Amino acid sequence: MRKEYLLAPGPTQVPPEVLLEMARPVFHHRTAEYRKLHQDVLEDLKTVFRTRNDVYTMTSSGTGAMETAVVNVLSPGEKALVVQGGKFGERWVNLCKAFGAQPIVIDVPWGKAVDPEEIRKHLKADPSIGAVYTQLCETSTGVVFDMQAIGAVVKETAAILVCDGISAVGAIPMETDAWGIDMLVSGSQKALMLPPGLAFITVSPKAWKRIDERKPMAFYFDIKKARKNLATFDNPWTPAVTLVVGLKKSLEIINARGIEQVWKDHTRLAKAARAAAKAMGLQVFADPPADCVTAIRLPDSIDGEALVKRLRKDCGITIAGGQDQLKGKIIRISHMGYADSTDVIIAISAVEMLLVEMGHKLEIGAGVRAAEMALLGK
Amino acid sequence: MRKEYLLAPGPTQVPPEVLLEMARPVFHHRTAEYRKLHQDVLEDLKTVFRTRNDVYTMTSSGTGAMETAVVNVLSPGEKALVVQGGKFGERWVNLCKAFGAQPIVIDVPWGKAVDPEEIRKHLKADPSIGAVYTQLCETSTGVVFDMQAIGAVVKETAAILVCDGISAVGAIPMETDAWGIDMLVSGSQKALMLPPGLAFITVSPKAWKRIDERKPMAFYFDIKKARKNLATFDNPWTPAVTLVVGLKKSLEIINARGIEQVWKDHTRLAKAARAAAKAMGLQVFADPPADCVTAIRLPDSIDGEALVKRLRKDCGITIAGGQDQLKGKIIRISHMGYADSTDVIIAISAVEMLLVEMGHKLEIGAGVRAAEMALLGK
Repeated sequence: MRKEYLLAPGPTQVPPEVLLEMARPVFHHRTAEYRKLHQDVLEDLKTVFRTRNDVYTMTSSGTGAMETAVVNVLSPGEKALVVQGGKFGERWVNLCKAFGAQPIVIDVPWGKAVDPEEIRKHLKADPSIGAVYTQLCETSTGVVFDMQAIGAVVKETAAILVCDGISAVGAIPMETDAWGIDMLVSGSQKALMLPPGLAFITVSPKAWKRIDERKPMAFYFDIKKARKNLATFDNPWTPAVTLVVGLKKSLEIINARGIEQVWKDHTRLAKAARAAAKAMGLQVFADPPADCVTAIRLPDSIDGEALVKRLRKDCGITIAGGQDQLKGKIIRISHMGYADSTDVIIAISAVEMLLVEMGHKLEIGAGVRAAEMALLGK
Repeated sequence: MRKEYLLAPGPTQVPPEVLLEMARPVFHHRTAEYRKLHQDVLEDLKTVFRTRNDVYTMTSSGTGAMETAVVNVLSPGEKALVVQGGKFGERWVNLCKAFGAQPIVIDVPWGKAVDPEEIRKHLKADPSIGAVYTQLCETSTGVVFDMQAIGAVVKETAAILVCDGISAVGAIPMETDAWGIDMLVSGSQKALMLPPGLAFITVSPKAWKRIDERKPMAFYFDIKKARKNLATFDNPWTPAVTLVVGLKKSLEIINARGIEQVWKDHTRLAKAARAAAKAMGLQVFADPPADCVTAIRLPDSIDGEALVKRLRKDCGITIAGGQDQLKGKIIRISHMGYADSTDVIIAISAVEMLLVEMGHKLEIGAGVRAAEMALLGK
């Protein structure tokens, strides 16, 4: 007997009741039944995203929603300010380049957060910058950016603020409207407790103004087509009906608990994971750390890739390692969505046992004890 | 008690064993488990698509795969020959225009097939035409195009042949390699018996040559990125894991029966539906008709939109009506994928009863009797 635990920062575990809901017979999307469902999930998404702006569902991975926020917003040659502090910041840069826009890159050391004043400086120096692209949580490093402060800076300018909240929205505080996020991007397979295949984007009036002044470099991701269809709660293209059905259920679970409580739950798990890391003599990699995923710096003597592989193979536990410059150097444990204290205990326990087996000196049980202390609020 | 039947040309019914398979716990996609699954389904897809060319899975509706076949193949200003004989031919035209390519349009009356000689004439007159875009079945009219003859024409030229087989592949004969289809596009929610959310595309060596000579106007749909990832059976972006899991099961069902037998099964159902239409005093709209969907011309006295609505509301049966110029004038009954003779009987029976109720003169039971005769091979 061996149980499997999916504790990577996406895809994450899906509640069994959501999985079963999605096993219901498929129905047609050009029907009153689908339109009502779609209308309901859009309202529920607004509650989770803390916005009264339009919300769109699209059939793609989160990257498709990121592309939507580029191809509708920037014309070839136009400038964008991009915060590049990890793999997903790089994705914004690559997206801009793919469609001929000009990214002005703020390079942030991986594991650190951007200084909002840097953004202010750039926007002041070049008022032709049309949009700022950043992350709420840079999933590759586990860092949370100060989106409230960034929002306050961008709000004063003509630029729009686009935030990739794929791994963060629904897990950690995000006040889309109050903070002035013009386009918020998210995906189904993280804190929203669904399989991958659906993505989301919100659009503020300020963003619409910019979008309406431009011809999109898009067809599938043409947000104006989506807006036209939204008037009747339709999608421009055949939607992933089963995932929308699952979404209704997962949003019900989230909203029954209340999004603020859900944020607190994530913080509790993240605090336990961070306390455990320290107790094992390891460093929390991110500064400041996001509460949706905990990145832990491994000792130089430990091969992180081997650790992740053995966790999966020997313990049935899937977490993530580091990417690119962080390959083999960090591990990342998710707290997103359908995760509770048992998941932290299981992950920390397995990591500390494996670290001992791989030759790292630590007091056996110290990680789990620290996690328990944190969970108990001590 | 009221049963629901989904008999529209996509999404179609999904076998319960496929729905349950997809309710299995989600697992991570950067694992040996996913790569093996992905490798297996790609092999099984090749069997169904009758190709040894590369096959790609993508997380999008079929339109995303259509976009892939445009943005990687045409640079702005380049010419494409597009067969426009319905809604989906129009989609190729709109896709070309959205990305600045020049579509040369062959207008085909809705309900008729393109003459392959028309294609030959255009390609001869203008050798700068880089690609030909067409449909195997134009789902909006129920017509099947002679793809073998079209393939023979295009094969002799430098142009590549792109075929939208979204509603047809897996239902009616398509010999991708033997007929010379350079890019075949398909979707999950039709004959492949899955929910919507996955799309497919094949790429021939001739198509790769053209693609490799160009910079794509794409990021999410960049097929060169997909090729790079395919080397390790990965996807460039997080795949819709549950749909890929379901795909393995549905392809097993198809390949256990054998694709040629599956084609024959569809023909049998389509023949029954067409015989029933005639027996009800109605015309089969498409000429020649595809065996994956039967479009039936309604009498002028019947409001087709009302008929489709009452079928859904009163009988629990979802079929499709006509679009645009065919609105209210035709009905379309699907035979794709998870459909058998019971579905034809149910659909025809309900249609004939409703037609009587709506004032159309017909011999009650004549439609079903004709369907039965056809099913019995008489």
